[in-house]
Amino acid sequence: MSRFPDDNPLPEKAPLLSWRARMHEVIFEADTPAGKAFDVLLIVCILGSVLAVMLDSVKSIRLAYGPLLTTVEWIFTVLFTIEYLLRLFSVGKPLKYAGSFFGIVDLLAVIPTYLSLVLPGTHYLLVIRVLRILRIFRILKLVQYLSEARMLMQALRSSGRKITVFLFAVLTMVIIFGSLMYMIEGEAAGFTSIPRSIYWAIVTLTTVGYGDISPQTNFGQVVASVVMVLGYGIIAVPTGIVTVEMGQAFRKKGVSTQSCQECSADGHDPDAVHCKYCGSKL
Amino acid sequence: MSRFPDDNPLPEKAPLLSWRARMHEVIFEADTPAGKAFDVLLIVCILGSVLAVMLDSVKSIRLAYGPLLTTVEWIFTVLFTIEYLLRLFSVGKPLKYAGSFFGIVDLLAVIPTYLSLVLPGTHYLLVIRVLRILRIFRILKLVQYLSEARMLMQALRSSGRKITVFLFAVLTMVIIFGSLMYMIEGEAAGFTSIPRSIYWAIVTLTTVGYGDISPQTNFGQVVASVVMVLGYGIIAVPTGIVTVEMGQAFRKKGVSTQSCQECSADGHDPDAVHCKYCGSKL
Amino acid sequence: MSRFPDDNPLPEKAPLLSWRARMHEVIFEADTPAGKAFDVLLIVCILGSVLAVMLDSVKSIRLAYGPLLTTVEWIFTVLFTIEYLLRLFSVGKPLKYAGSFFGIVDLLAVIPTYLSLVLPGTHYLLVIRVLRILRIFRILKLVQYLSEARMLMQALRSSGRKITVFLFAVLTMVIIFGSLMYMIEGEAAGFTSIPRSIYWAIVTLTTVGYGDISPQTNFGQVVASVVMVLGYGIIAVPTGIVTVEMGQAFRKKGVSTQSCQECSADGHDPDAVHCKYCGSKL
Amino acid sequence: MSRFPDDNPLPEKAPLLSWRARMHEVIFEADTPAGKAFDVLLIVCILGSVLAVMLDSVKSIRLAYGPLLTTVEWIFTVLFTIEYLLRLFSVGKPLKYAGSFFGIVDLLAVIPTYLSLVLPGTHYLLVIRVLRILRIFRILKLVQYLSEARMLMQALRSSGRKITVFLFAVLTMVIIFGSLMYMIEGEAAGFTSIPRSIYWAIVTLTTVGYGDISPQTNFGQVVASVVMVLGYGIIAVPTGIVTVEMGQAFRKKGVSTQSCQECSADGHDPDAVHCKYCGSKL
Repeated sequence: MSRFPDDNPLPEKAPLLSWRARMHEVIFEADTPAGKAFDVLLIVCILGSVLAVMLDSVKSIRLAYGPLLTTVEWIFTVLFTIEYLLRLFSVGKPLKYAGSFFGIVDLLAVIPTYLSLVLPGTHYLLVIRVLRILRIFRILKLVQYLSEARMLMQALRSSGRKITVFLFAVLTMVIIFGSLMYMIEGEAAGFTSIPRSIYWAIVTLTTVGYGDISPQTNFGQVVASVVMVLGYGIIAVPTGIVTVEMGQAFRKKGVSTQSCQECSADGHDPDAVHCKYCGSKL
Repeated sequence: MSRFPDDNPLPEKAPLLSWRARMHEVIFEADTPAGKAFDVLLIVCILGSVLAVMLDSVKSIRLAYGPLLTTVEWIFTVLFTIEYLLRLFSVGKPLKYAGSFFGIVDLLAVIPTYLSLVLPGTHYLLVIRVLRILRIFRILKLVQYLSEARMLMQALRSSGRKITVFLFAVLTMVIIFGSLMYMIEGEAAGFTSIPRSIYWAIVTLTTVGYGDISPQTNFGQVVASVVMVLGYGIIAVPTGIVTVEMGQAFRKKGVSTQSCQECSADGHDPDAVHCKYCGSKL
Repeated sequence: MSRFPDDNPLPEKAPLLSWRARMHEVIFEADTPAGKAFDVLLIVCILGSVLAVMLDSVKSIRLAYGPLLTTVEWIFTVLFTIEYLLRLFSVGKPLKYAGSFFGIVDLLAVIPTYLSLVLPGTHYLLVIRVLRILRIFRILKLVQYLSEARMLMQALRSSGRKITVFLFAVLTMVIIFGSLMYMIEGEAAGFTSIPRSIYWAIVTLTTVGYGDISPQTNFGQVVASVVMVLGYGIIAVPTGIVTVEMGQAFRKKGVSTQSCQECSADGHDPDAVHCKYCGSKL
Repeated sequence: MSRFPDDNPLPEKAPLLSWRARMHEVIFEADTPAGKAFDVLLIVCILGSVLAVMLDSVKSIRLAYGPLLTTVEWIFTVLFTIEYLLRLFSVGKPLKYAGSFFGIVDLLAVIPTYLSLVLPGTHYLLVIRVLRILRIFRILKLVQYLSEARMLMQALRSSGRKITVFLFAVLTMVIIFGSLMYMIEGEAAGFTSIPRSIYWAIVTLTTVGYGDISPQTNFGQVVASVVMVLGYGIIAVPTGIVTVEMGQAFRKKGVSTQSCQECSADGHDPDAVHCKYCGSKL
């Protein structure tokens, strides 16, 4: 397992690791038994705390087990606080960690509970606590699923611009059709304003179709039919884009792992005989 | 037709088959006239019994034809019991069969009816009887559709990890958006708890859109629009994954593994007789 | 334009065509000015008659313009009857035509109106009249869109077996999940019988989501969520199958048009240097 | 940045540009600082004016800020009028511009407001004002997203015929199934006429599923299930078409057209320096 950029710079096989380096190995890595045990424990805590937040939102459960859930919440908060401090301490550059994506998520996992002591209206802080679920991805980062995730992300990123153009076209269609339906149907059918009609157009174009607003007039139903068929058809566009990009992203992996002995370039086709950059034989 | 792993080890063309081997051939295989007739009969019985269970659940039919349906049910149960015992008897290793997937399904096909004699509340046993439909796949296993099914399964299995990563991302999105909507909309609009809001998020993201819960506030509709467009767009991800994997699974079958003896080029079409690069005979 | 199998066997450039052959050319073909004019007229009549049937079903229009619509209907019926008789007469083998798919559709286009004279209850004959729309495909057969349609049909036909396996799996899932929901939700939530619950499962798995039946209990919503995510995900399977098959069907067209000078085989890859069947240079 | 066909024919680096040419450069192009600033300003104005139209349609906002919105509307209208006149003036052939797609859109952006002075019923003019959003594409035309948009358009255009055949088949299915359901369900379930039943068929086939009309009889639900599974399955067709066409459109861009001077092999990656088959310099 290769080390990550935020890893401690000490060599892995050094006979004597400082206890700070060893702590880093346990907390940030997953290739030692202690590191794996820590990860499993962390996953259990994260899922447990998210489950507690969910249950706390169900009225009947909150009324019956309110105090218990508050206790559980505090236990998890204290655990996550200790973990956050240990991470800050064991990492080489604490400030860089604190400002990174996962550093902020780790902080957001504990702050709301403390804030609820001083601020009323914990209701809005509830959702921030749900963001703890994002911490799961920290463990994902360490395991074998990383390469699949990276491949998917790569395909999505390389199709990003085309998707943007597509979303732009969808937005324009939705605004025009929404306004059209506002004019055709009017307030009686629930198309009370252009923004609301645009909401209807999105519900219809994406084939969700709640049915809370639906056209009543004949002409409105004709226009709605056009929007539906359009939405049904143009889903082919993002699907086509992503499929083609994935085909290329996966093929690149199917690419030879050989690297040129002369210029050490890689990414050669499996059928290449010579390096395509310097021409020397592979 | 190739033999399956659980086949009787006797050679197929042995002049004298023991009656147990012959019974095995009829029950477990499909390449003799008797075996085919048995399979057709079995399909008829399976479909008939599942149909009987379905009809039995319709109140008006149960009131009118209750006793008839009970009789039919018992006939099928006795037939399936005999079949199960014959399978146990004719197979080489009865215990291994009894513990296999189809062994358990075969047992579950008969047990609920006997249990209904001693236990009240057959209601819950009803569904187990529907599992008989799974027995259809036993026949599928023996016929020509096997290779298509295997190809599909292979494509799905090789895309399993990427699909897992995708499902993981979907789960995270659904939890976060569900919690967000719980906070925004509140109880008035039906978002009574986070689990229920997550249910709404799944209904919306998968573009099912029942409309039993739908956002009422302006901001809620904006967030819902984001979830819809997201769901509409990211369906491209599993589609792309499966398409690419299928392309590879089908291509593997489609390309001959032969390589030219002269220039050792490969990638020849299955029907190629000569190397397409140097012209020498394959 | 190549001639079709049911064409008159007379050579196209014969200086003297019998009037029967000339009639055949006008009615069955599209490569003469008269033939094109006939086709355009036919399309107008077909669309007009289907439109008349549709308008006739709208109560307010039927009350206001009933007699007019009946007159229009009889005019179209007489025209189609004449056309049918002319087709019967001009074709080489009248019985073969009468028994062909389009022969039956042509007959069904006129019979209902005559039947309405003797039989009461034209209501059920109405829909048969709508089948006239299928006659449009007769014209499609003659024009340039044919090759695209043939290519699509070829891709669908070659993926037919895999699609069958997929539909089989969907059917099984729908039966099992439907029965499960019948057990979980019961009659209160609208799951009044297994067939009706299977209908719900189809509505949900295909992401249609009417919302006329929707789960009310917590556990029912969990199972429904599984069905939704499943339906959302497995749409990748038919899409993948058809995409891959289309890729192959279109690529075959993209295949080199070169044919071997020795063995006159074609279908060579664009990069082939030698004929892959006989080895001679292309 | 290449110039567009409607560009002024003066060379870009001419030391002295007439002020008309310079104005053209600012208004129609995006490769000078002034041109970019103009584009950004224009985008702000377009989005601002569309937002004003939207807000004006919300009753509560109109009642509270009506006069303000009218003032804003007039400011944007005057700005767009000045811009339109400047475009007319600075372009080489004003009439050709006025008759072009964007020329008409530019005119439609200002006319409704002036018409509202003389005509009552601005309600219907509202939607025309929303068409201003199309002017955004004018800016898109000038920026880097152009090539992605062009690639998407190319893939869609080359799949246009196949999509047409598909839409034709969908239309036929929808008419036949709609009529069938009108016959089966009748007026009680909301299937009051064939056009309305066709609307239902479109809602169902495209998996939108509002639920405002849904089958009530058993046979109607069976037919509806067939329509749903059909709609769920045949979405694979447009997706397959577009994916394959995109694969070809992207591949064309993706492969260098260079061929090796030694062995004249081609299909090299765009970044290849040496032939991957023989190693000679490209």
